[in-house]
Amino acid sequence: MDIDSTAQDKARLFAGAWGRVKALPGKLKAKVTSTAKSIKKLGQDDPRRLTHSLKVGLALTLVSLLYYARPIYDGFGVSGMWAVLTVVVVFEFTVGGTLSKSLNRGFATFLAGALGLGADYFASLFGKNGEPIVLGILVFLLAAAATFSRFFPRIKARYDYGVLIFILTFSLVAVSGYRVNELVVLAHQRLSTIIMGGATCMLISIFVCPVWAGEDLHKAIASNLEKLATYLEGFGGVYFQSSEIDGMGTGKSFPQGYKSILNSKSSEESLANFARWEPGHGRFRLRHPWKHYLKIGALARQCAYQIEAINGCIGSDHIHGSEEFKGKIEGSCTRMSAECGKTLKALAKSMKTMTDPYSSANTHVENSKAAMKDLKFALKAASLENADLAAILPAATVGSILVEIVKCVEKISEAVHELSQLAHFEKETVEPTVSPEKPPQLLHRGIIQPVLDGDSTANDNVVITIHEIISTDSPENGKACDQHQVPKPGQKIEAL
Amino acid sequence: MDIDSTAQDKARLFAGAWGRVKALPGKLKAKVTSTAKSIKKLGQDDPRRLTHSLKVGLALTLVSLLYYARPIYDGFGVSGMWAVLTVVVVFEFTVGGTLSKSLNRGFATFLAGALGLGADYFASLFGKNGEPIVLGILVFLLAAAATFSRFFPRIKARYDYGVLIFILTFSLVAVSGYRVNELVVLAHQRLSTIIMGGATCMLISIFVCPVWAGEDLHKAIASNLEKLATYLEGFGGVYFQSSEIDGMGTGKSFPQGYKSILNSKSSEESLANFARWEPGHGRFRLRHPWKHYLKIGALARQCAYQIEAINGCIGSDHIHGSEEFKGKIEGSCTRMSAECGKTLKALAKSMKTMTDPYSSANTHVENSKAAMKDLKFALKAASLENADLAAILPAATVGSILVEIVKCVEKISEAVHELSQLAHFEKETVEPTVSPEKPPQLLHRGIIQPVLDGDSTANDNVVITIHEIISTDSPENGKACDQHQVPKPGQKIEAL
Repeated sequence: MDIDSTAQDKARLFAGAWGRVKALPGKLKAKVTSTAKSIKKLGQDDPRRLTHSLKVGLALTLVSLLYYARPIYDGFGVSGMWAVLTVVVVFEFTVGGTLSKSLNRGFATFLAGALGLGADYFASLFGKNGEPIVLGILVFLLAAAATFSRFFPRIKARYDYGVLIFILTFSLVAVSGYRVNELVVLAHQRLSTIIMGGATCMLISIFVCPVWAGEDLHKAIASNLEKLATYLEGFGGVYFQSSEIDGMGTGKSFPQGYKSILNSKSSEESLANFARWEPGHGRFRLRHPWKHYLKIGALARQCAYQIEAINGCIGSDHIHGSEEFKGKIEGSCTRMSAECGKTLKALAKSMKTMTDPYSSANTHVENSKAAMKDLKFALKAASLENADLAAILPAATVGSILVEIVKCVEKISEAVHELSQLAHFEKETVEPTVSPEKPPQLLHRGIIQPVLDGDSTANDNVVITIHEIISTDSPENGKACDQHQVPKPGQKIEAL
Repeated sequence: MDIDSTAQDKARLFAGAWGRVKALPGKLKAKVTSTAKSIKKLGQDDPRRLTHSLKVGLALTLVSLLYYARPIYDGFGVSGMWAVLTVVVVFEFTVGGTLSKSLNRGFATFLAGALGLGADYFASLFGKNGEPIVLGILVFLLAAAATFSRFFPRIKARYDYGVLIFILTFSLVAVSGYRVNELVVLAHQRLSTIIMGGATCMLISIFVCPVWAGEDLHKAIASNLEKLATYLEGFGGVYFQSSEIDGMGTGKSFPQGYKSILNSKSSEESLANFARWEPGHGRFRLRHPWKHYLKIGALARQCAYQIEAINGCIGSDHIHGSEEFKGKIEGSCTRMSAECGKTLKALAKSMKTMTDPYSSANTHVENSKAAMKDLKFALKAASLENADLAAILPAATVGSILVEIVKCVEKISEAVHELSQLAHFEKETVEPTVSPEKPPQLLHRGIIQPVLDGDSTANDNVVITIHEIISTDSPENGKACDQHQVPKPGQKIEAL
């Protein structure tokens, strides 16, 4: 029995080992397949990545062949390799990045070369023995000062690469040990090859399938607004319905696209930095207000933080007792979030089409504000005698954060308006689809909302005359109205 | 009259212009002073910046002088400038950054040099006419493939610079047009000068006032926890008291340090990437779990998002009617946030001293959970008959988000425990200062809290016997208890 089991064990071990050996080509194949898949995915996610790679290959091949071709090689000498070096180091994904690096490199080389020549001349005054010491001190001082300057946020953002090249060229020229007349020839060769390499990069990046940082920034901000809109438009329905069906909204069925906005700051800032270097392109002029996009981006992030807080509340919301209360605020909350979503969609669309968002977005902002007032009255009218505050708290919190989101969306709307003025967006043509629809503000799950906006007289079919009350912040006003005009819960008005 | 006024105007204009001219040196002086001040501030904020600048200057001067000294210059030829170039490009602020770039550069140069030689040999097989074409195709293919590989997030994070240098060296070697035996000499010179430059950088960055990325990451995460703690510890007092005094907490008097955490992701990730290249240093061994810090960092950010939501709620809280309700939840909310703050302080301290945080932090976590239960009961017991839900909503929301923060802080505590196990933190010596203090859970503004933790039998001076109730989520349980054991609001028990 023992021997048998040992034999079985051995057989099993052997089978396992053999299985692993047999599986090796399979594993290799799986590895290759998964790598191929991830390469394909990388290319499909953004096909411009593939184009960019081919562009770099093209630029490098062009410059290499120039360098390889003997006549030019003889003209430029070893300096020709600086053209190759420049292309590799300078070619960036966006036009703005390439321009920024090329121009930084060109100017820094020129400036540092001139300073280096001066330093060489100055050091030569100290005789053969003093020269290396003076040069050493100069290189030390300049390198330390320039390195320190890279810590300034403004220099870091725009001229970091230029300062690096400045240190590099200055050190090279200063300690090269050539005589000055030789140096001038060398500097001329260096500069002209760098210009050649830089120009090749700039031309290819601008004219062959250009990737504009500015356009990317514009699209990124618009798509961020859209992601927020998608969440908010879906939120009301999913939150209130899912909890009616299974008693808990786990937040898993919500679109989580907004999460990418939470950490979008650095990429937006670098795009805005690059965009400033770009010439006018497409619908963007030279001095497009790129900085203003950062403001909209920051507000969108603010809104995303609020959504993150809502998302956190949802998971903890599995108390059945809150259903009744939830039902009471469902209408206004759903409308608030839906109208916020519509506002953001309208703003995103207006950014994409570069038309003034005034009428379409403003209607939705007003609607969301009206829904916010609805919520206030729903809360006031909610009967709390039998309610358990701990049970209604999650839903109430969602309502409260939605109020913050409405305020935030209003700010975003203002910022986009500002942008549309700064960037001279086209005036919107009147679209018949976006009529200033008034939501049914009067009847709403048995709660009369006593505040009506100015144009309420249009609703002639409502017979009850209601005095115009604008201020709703003071609870006394609201209560006074409640007593006179709010029907008891459950009572319905057929007029609407 | 007219003439007089014109003369006065002229005089005024002249005085204005003269004033501006006189002010010019003053403006220049002010500009210089402000620049000097910002330089000083930059240095004072982090004195290591100054040290770093001096270190770069030192490394560059050393390498330059080697290059300048004739015997070595004759030995290395023009390749000596690669040492200078390497120092400028490779020297980074942290040891990890310098090591990562040096090693990337070294290996990439070696690999690409070898491949380039192979490509040269392969191309030479095609004869004088075919050679440039074959080389061009090879350079194009390799540059495009390598550029595409830089889009892979994993390669981008760790080997971006290596791939860049790979493309650079391959192109240079492939198209240099030298014969192979010449190339071997050249490659040898290049590689040895690069190693010289890289070694200088590595030695100086490790042995002269080193700045360890790992240590920075460790400190940054601990200080983030502390910033959260400072906010939470102060929150209760400032929020509830300021609104009692002036009726509105505008959120301005809160410490806003936590805001920097919101956008800390990218800097934490780059530090963690650099830290992996570093050898063991100080209290950190070679394979310190750097990746785990990112997990704690992400949780800290999660907590910061919640705080951001609270901070938003505070500004909108100017309804006087909520004072009564606020008073009811004040105790538990203040304790929740204070205990969360204490937990985070204890965790930050345990990270700083690298001791196991178990006993000190756990006590506070338990306390904060107990306070959370208090809040639930305070909410249940709160009389809502006269209350206006809209008025109490802001305070209720703050309570609700605090509950989320307690959960988040518990997760952070778990993550730090995990880290302390992975990184073998020292076991904590028993500290008499952090006694497991039980907050006064029983009496609390006239509300009896019927849930007691397991060790409640220790409180012998309370005569009322209370059955142990663990589940508090179901409102029915709570209500049943309320009816039997909770005295009416206002009634006090002298036993405590």
